[in-house]
Amino acid sequence: MANARSDDIARQTPAPAVEEPPRKSDLTRQRILDAAARVFSERGYSGTRLTDIAARAGLQAGSLYYHFDSREKLIDEIMHLGTRRTHAAAVERLAALPPDASPLRRLETLIENHLLLGLEQSDYSSASIKLIWQVPADIRERQLVGQRAYGALWREELEKARAVGAIRPDLNLSTVRMMIAGALNWATDWYKPTGDSPTRLARDLVEMVLHGLARAPAREAGPDGGVADPPPATSRPRR
Amino acid sequence: MANARSDDIARQTPAPAVEEPPRKSDLTRQRILDAAARVFSERGYSGTRLTDIAARAGLQAGSLYYHFDSREKLIDEIMHLGTRRTHAAAVERLAALPPDASPLRRLETLIENHLLLGLEQSDYSSASIKLIWQVPADIRERQLVGQRAYGALWREELEKARAVGAIRPDLNLSTVRMMIAGALNWATDWYKPTGDSPTRLARDLVEMVLHGLARAPAREAGPDGGVADPPPATSRPRR
Repeated sequence: MANARSDDIARQTPAPAVEEPPRKSDLTRQRILDAAARVFSERGYSGTRLTDIAARAGLQAGSLYYHFDSREKLIDEIMHLGTRRTHAAAVERLAALPPDASPLRRLETLIENHLLLGLEQSDYSSASIKLIWQVPADIRERQLVGQRAYGALWREELEKARAVGAIRPDLNLSTVRMMIAGALNWATDWYKPTGDSPTRLARDLVEMVLHGLARAPAREAGPDGGVADPPPATSRPRR
Repeated sequence: MANARSDDIARQTPAPAVEEPPRKSDLTRQRILDAAARVFSERGYSGTRLTDIAARAGLQAGSLYYHFDSREKLIDEIMHLGTRRTHAAAVERLAALPPDASPLRRLETLIENHLLLGLEQSDYSSASIKLIWQVPADIRERQLVGQRAYGALWREELEKARAVGAIRPDLNLSTVRMMIAGALNWATDWYKPTGDSPTRLARDLVEMVLHGLARAPAREAGPDGGVADPPPATSRPRR
């Protein structure tokens, strides 16, 4: 079941231009999920009752039970949807790039997409991040399956970039991938709409990750001197 | 109370070379905290009972109650200790640097320290990260006070680095700080002792954050062209 899901993601193609109008029961289901994501995110797993979710969705409890008969099924679906949408959007955005887009442009696209989707569907992201350690272990395990499929896409892009010499050869790409994921996921927690726009956040993160904080060309080697191809030495301020 | 704590941190100085031997009751207290950090991290807030913690510490429940009479007090102390130790170690390590250490070396020190302390006291870090959204709101608020004091140290170092031109002027330093914190904190969750050493992880993160993933000098501007002082153009592979 969980494996079938991650396969779905890998095969996902952009939606056709003309869609069937959604059925009424699909709309209700979506309304329940949106309400549940918000309530879970506000009250935590053990603090949420199905009746709270029904009330938030403006439904009778019976109508909610028709779609989801337990908290487990709801949170499972919410966490799964968050990862699946982010993954599907990443695949679409990469496919929409010009065929000669550089590997760095492709990495930039992955970073932007993850941040923008995370903030856009913030109740889903926030519920996933806050509740991952509160839900039963079998739900957590199932989420990891979808997350690994999405992680494989990142790994592939990082490896392609390294293979053609676009990124440094001296860093562990698993570390890089997990560190970027941490930076991106945490943003859902601290981001405030009153501050910088999501696009500006994404630009700053892309710039830091791809090109570094240090002011070029006053590039300074780390303690291990692990910097590949340093630019010509120039005088730099010392303090 | 919470404010007094964050002031304590700011004034903290390295311990004197000769210390009083710890009292027996301090040792017991420490044993309880270590056991509690582990149990909270494994079972979550609502899944943990004081009797589980007493059993793990090899104590009678009465002895535990003598030191901590509620789960709230225990988790509050555990979260507080995690932040305080990391903050105090950062202050010490910065003070131990040569007076002419560059601003980038100081930022490197902050990153290394945060990662190493997080992994070293992993039960404390892990309990803090997993439980922050499970504990009562007043505990969460108190933790934020300590975290803000520690965040102020980071802000100060980043601003000093920018003031002397050691880091790029075009990035929002709050974004930078929160993104680095996310990358570091998340590592407590995914790190496996069977992989790279903590020192190697820290080196990779420092390299990525300060100098970027993109292979120098084939530096490539972002879509906004926001790269400061690019090195001389060279041919770079296009695919």
